[in-house]
Amino acid sequence: MYLTEKEIFSQYHALRQTYDYLLANAQQVRTLYEGHKPRSLTFVGCGSGYCLCQAAETSTKLRLGLPANAVAGGDLLVNFAHYEQLLQGSMLIAPSRSGGTSEVVLAVKKAKAMGVPVIGISAKEGSPLGELADLSLEIPWAFDESVCQTRTVTNLYAANLALIAILANDQRLLAEIDEAINGGPGFMEKYTGLAKEIAAADWEKVIVLADSELDGIAKEAAIAFSEIPQIAANYYHVLDVRHGPMVLVDEKTLAVVALSPEEYTLQRDLIRDLKGRGAKVVTISHTGADWGSDWQVDVPRYANYGVAGIPFIFIPQAVGLYKALNKGLNPDLPAGLEPMIDLGN
Amino acid sequence: MYLTEKEIFSQYHALRQTYDYLLANAQQVRTLYEGHKPRSLTFVGCGSGYCLCQAAETSTKLRLGLPANAVAGGDLLVNFAHYEQLLQGSMLIAPSRSGGTSEVVLAVKKAKAMGVPVIGISAKEGSPLGELADLSLEIPWAFDESVCQTRTVTNLYAANLALIAILANDQRLLAEIDEAINGGPGFMEKYTGLAKEIAAADWEKVIVLADSELDGIAKEAAIAFSEIPQIAANYYHVLDVRHGPMVLVDEKTLAVVALSPEEYTLQRDLIRDLKGRGAKVVTISHTGADWGSDWQVDVPRYANYGVAGIPFIFIPQAVGLYKALNKGLNPDLPAGLEPMIDLGN
Repeated sequence: MYLTEKEIFSQYHALRQTYDYLLANAQQVRTLYEGHKPRSLTFVGCGSGYCLCQAAETSTKLRLGLPANAVAGGDLLVNFAHYEQLLQGSMLIAPSRSGGTSEVVLAVKKAKAMGVPVIGISAKEGSPLGELADLSLEIPWAFDESVCQTRTVTNLYAANLALIAILANDQRLLAEIDEAINGGPGFMEKYTGLAKEIAAADWEKVIVLADSELDGIAKEAAIAFSEIPQIAANYYHVLDVRHGPMVLVDEKTLAVVALSPEEYTLQRDLIRDLKGRGAKVVTISHTGADWGSDWQVDVPRYANYGVAGIPFIFIPQAVGLYKALNKGLNPDLPAGLEPMIDLGN
Repeated sequence: MYLTEKEIFSQYHALRQTYDYLLANAQQVRTLYEGHKPRSLTFVGCGSGYCLCQAAETSTKLRLGLPANAVAGGDLLVNFAHYEQLLQGSMLIAPSRSGGTSEVVLAVKKAKAMGVPVIGISAKEGSPLGELADLSLEIPWAFDESVCQTRTVTNLYAANLALIAILANDQRLLAEIDEAINGGPGFMEKYTGLAKEIAAADWEKVIVLADSELDGIAKEAAIAFSEIPQIAANYYHVLDVRHGPMVLVDEKTLAVVALSPEEYTLQRDLIRDLKGRGAKVVTISHTGADWGSDWQVDVPRYANYGVAGIPFIFIPQAVGLYKALNKGLNPDLPAGLEPMIDLGN
């Protein structure tokens, strides 16, 4: 069995530990936060980690009512002077698989020198990021050995969301994350066959569409398609795909669409338009919805929409894995990709 | 001559009028702002307009020190309830070519019902958006007749930046925008031949890389490549391309890279890595920089980095135009694209 497969299918086992660990550390998180009373949260990460930062920015704005920023590690490092005002009075949160990616570590070092408090969330113990952070949250059970992140991503996504729930003292959000984790093994079992069926269909490029708090995790889904089966993939907001990207949609396109429980007709018409251009469409949405897509994946209707990102990401991960296998690729070792970037500084 | 070509090459003529118009309306902008004292700015738009909103979000955060949000029109419309808390006490700014795109108009209507003040910036007079807005800024000289936006985009980008400068009372930023506009015709003349040379080279896909305040306008550059010559194009942050997307970079890739005047070595090494995978690279950066790229485009080193976005966007627009012509496509009428989306509500 490939590592990628093992890691995808063990993500809920890790999520259980991550959730319990976050709750066990809730008081430390709150103490750091209340000690600094930050006027904003700034999330910094690279690649998949950056996507998770974008999701966390949206969730922070919507759930915590606090200004929030997502900054790519390399951008922050190169253009640090541009961001100094933004970092003043902010709290930095850095989700990272290795805790050792140069851009994040060097940027965090600069922020620390300004007195900015830092929470590092790393899937490795004793990492350079952890050494620097005021509070180092370590979830080693979520560490992916394969180059492409799958299990790690879901765990860092859930950790960010749980962190926001802890800061907002939102018990219902915490309960729904818990519920999504409990439902995970059954969800994977139910949809593994469908993922294989989708992977076996005839498509050569992907668009991933999602809105609201799922923006970042859907961007990560596009990265997973680029990396695992090495297929060109793009993320767009749901209705926004009509404003340009629609030109390139055709019968070779797989559209992976996360739909919101709100405004049924507007979203159904979009699926009809995608089908009209020949795309194969898989919709991922709350139970019972009928979008006229080729394949439908049901997730519970959560009161907190961001929770749907947890089951959502399994579908593109699994489809990407089986597509890679169908193409004869080794999903663990995509050509030309390093598991961690070291700038050699 | 195709409309797209006419519009690209008349963008500075329009920019001059847009700049003068914004300055002439500065007092009205300030009066609305000071009357509401918003706790944040929220930019809403679709497609290219959404990209401009993302640039404006970054510029607002960095230059005005105010929380800022960019929301896709369709996302805001479908998930309006998710965004209500974020809109409380915010001021909405909606840049739009037609001022009639359904998602923006319907979302603005909902925000108005909550009492949120709205500035509409539209390239059409008497538009539905203008009717709704508390302050309607109209720049009809910037209206593009062709489906793909070029001149309109530069004008809305500059209008957003000038608006932020007015709110921040930043005279130096205004002076640099003015300077970039004055330098535009000479810049276009200098680089038209180079754009033709780049377009004639052998590449079939594009990555656009940029950081900091150029994030949104670089995303728009990727859209321009998708729409005008119908070539798959993606935007990434500069160093972040190593974290995944690098896998798909090869000798068929054109990399259009806007580089910052900061941290020379980190960025030069990235260009070396792109070249190492066979990509053809055009760098766009401050005068005198040597990145080891295939083609270099010089822009003045502005104190306000966002100003560099004004000359930057001409290069991908012109390269995209000539690529479309080389492919025998009509750049004014890309298959399957509508100049404005009307949801029929």
